[in-house]
Amino acid sequence: MREIKVSLVGFGNVGRATAKVLIEKGRLFEERYGIRINVISISDTSGTVWLPEGIDLREALLVKENFGRLSAWTNDYEVYELTPEEAVREVDSEIVVDVTNDREAWTWHLRALKEGKGIVTSNKPPLAYHYRELISEAEKRELPYLFEATVMAGTPIVGLLRENLLGDEVQRIEAVLNATTTFILTQMERGLSFEEALAKAQKLGIAERDPSGDVLGIDAGYKATILHCLAFHPITYEEIKVRGIAEVTEGEIERAKTKGKTIRLVARIEKGNVVVEPAEIPKESPLAVESHENAAVIKTDLLGELIIKGAGAGLKETASGVVSDVIKAALRLV
Amino acid sequence: MREIKVSLVGFGNVGRATAKVLIEKGRLFEERYGIRINVISISDTSGTVWLPEGIDLREALLVKENFGRLSAWTNDYEVYELTPEEAVREVDSEIVVDVTNDREAWTWHLRALKEGKGIVTSNKPPLAYHYRELISEAEKRELPYLFEATVMAGTPIVGLLRENLLGDEVQRIEAVLNATTTFILTQMERGLSFEEALAKAQKLGIAERDPSGDVLGIDAGYKATILHCLAFHPITYEEIKVRGIAEVTEGEIERAKTKGKTIRLVARIEKGNVVVEPAEIPKESPLAVESHENAAVIKTDLLGELIIKGAGAGLKETASGVVSDVIKAALRLV
Repeated sequence: MREIKVSLVGFGNVGRATAKVLIEKGRLFEERYGIRINVISISDTSGTVWLPEGIDLREALLVKENFGRLSAWTNDYEVYELTPEEAVREVDSEIVVDVTNDREAWTWHLRALKEGKGIVTSNKPPLAYHYRELISEAEKRELPYLFEATVMAGTPIVGLLRENLLGDEVQRIEAVLNATTTFILTQMERGLSFEEALAKAQKLGIAERDPSGDVLGIDAGYKATILHCLAFHPITYEEIKVRGIAEVTEGEIERAKTKGKTIRLVARIEKGNVVVEPAEIPKESPLAVESHENAAVIKTDLLGELIIKGAGAGLKETASGVVSDVIKAALRLV
Repeated sequence: MREIKVSLVGFGNVGRATAKVLIEKGRLFEERYGIRINVISISDTSGTVWLPEGIDLREALLVKENFGRLSAWTNDYEVYELTPEEAVREVDSEIVVDVTNDREAWTWHLRALKEGKGIVTSNKPPLAYHYRELISEAEKRELPYLFEATVMAGTPIVGLLRENLLGDEVQRIEAVLNATTTFILTQMERGLSFEEALAKAQKLGIAERDPSGDVLGIDAGYKATILHCLAFHPITYEEIKVRGIAEVTEGEIERAKTKGKTIRLVARIEKGNVVVEPAEIPKESPLAVESHENAAVIKTDLLGELIIKGAGAGLKETASGVVSDVIKAALRLV
């Protein structure tokens, strides 16, 4: 049995879902992969809990869920005031897992790589703005830098493009990559106004209190940028065109319906050209997804069209991608 | 630039399609991966052409296509009478590519592994009957044993199950894995009898002269066996239940149609239980594929349902899987 030491940075919804999977399935992973995943530090915005022997994840969840912050933990554990940059430098882990929304996380991703640590991330902006630097630093140091959960939650489109189809050239990807906009558009098809649909999404926890990331297409844009980096060459979010769904009218929804079509926020990704915008989709198209499903149609020179479709949101669905990457990173590092 | 020496065993349709991709895209692979794939031997049933400096694949294709056998090659090349077992022992290659239909190929796969060579195969029976031995020999020796093209041609369902979803447990797979039966059933829906549809498939080269492998469900059964090995644990083809489409009547086809359904040869794969048989599928199901498309619905504990759909047959589509695996094996060996 080989032990791998992990720092978990971020203990919000995705971080806690990841911890739950590690609690429930840790034993199974030991049997299946011969690897014990030992979380030795957890950081949230209140501080960093760090225990070199490993943290009891059940207790960490209890503290967080009862008190809302890790710094409330006072019995056996030391809570340190460390920035993420300090944490990745000081904590002796082998893999750093970023499940934050920190837009500037790329700085401490780079720091972690320079310290010889692998990275697993569900956090999109580092890749959407700094793909080239991060991947080349990781390659130079032969360290894993894995990001399955950044696009389509755990549905393995990143693994598919990054580690498979090695003889194919991708010609085009068309994809629906944001579930919140799908929910809002579906509700509008049922007669709600944009504002009503958005309010419903917020009430159900599908949209955030500040919904701009989803509604303006930024989230889908980040993901489309990452897919372009994988399929073609590194670009940044600034180089793509994005129009969200805020201006989609009830009239447009109706017109699409009468033509047997449906409007979805579609990303079209070609070499050097990425456009994210609302588009009419035939009802029978694989992109006419419902609920929290995402879908991508990947066209390549040898294979033709390949469709991958699955969960694009959800906590355990996102944790699926994070945990798969942690295991993958661990298997490469042992 | 690192060179990797490859033995190509089999020079039928898939072998030649593979050679064509290597000719057309070899330069690109050198740039992209820093690897030169050098085929130093090619075997067909007439003999083995072997040149330690590397074979001119263009010439090999010309000889094969003009004379039907490699042993007709008499100018610069030596043609040896070697069994595949002798070829993998004597030829100094690093990767052996099996694109034959040799049912007993597992013996020389094992031999190749024992000689320290990696394997890439599109040949199904070795895996459908000897998965456990072959994979454990490869793991013991830390050699690649790759078989993307055995299931769904180059559509990367093998890579998806083998190298991704590492934190998920698969609960069930439902899949349509044989394109010839889909063609025949589609033709029957258009009014042809089974015999007429089969004759048409044979005329178009979709079904073989001896169509039993497809029609009796053996091909789909091999693939379903391999998927079970990947998703659960090793089994053999003898342990699964297979019923082909030879007994599907025009009446059954009609009855399905009136219910808005379609009959396809469906593989249902659960832990310890694999059944391949004709089944009624709703028209809107992802399994209601047309033409040469295959589809699989993979249900897991964390992700829920994941759908992958793409080419399940075709020469360059199969070569896509073989070539991707050759590159993957080369990247691991360098």
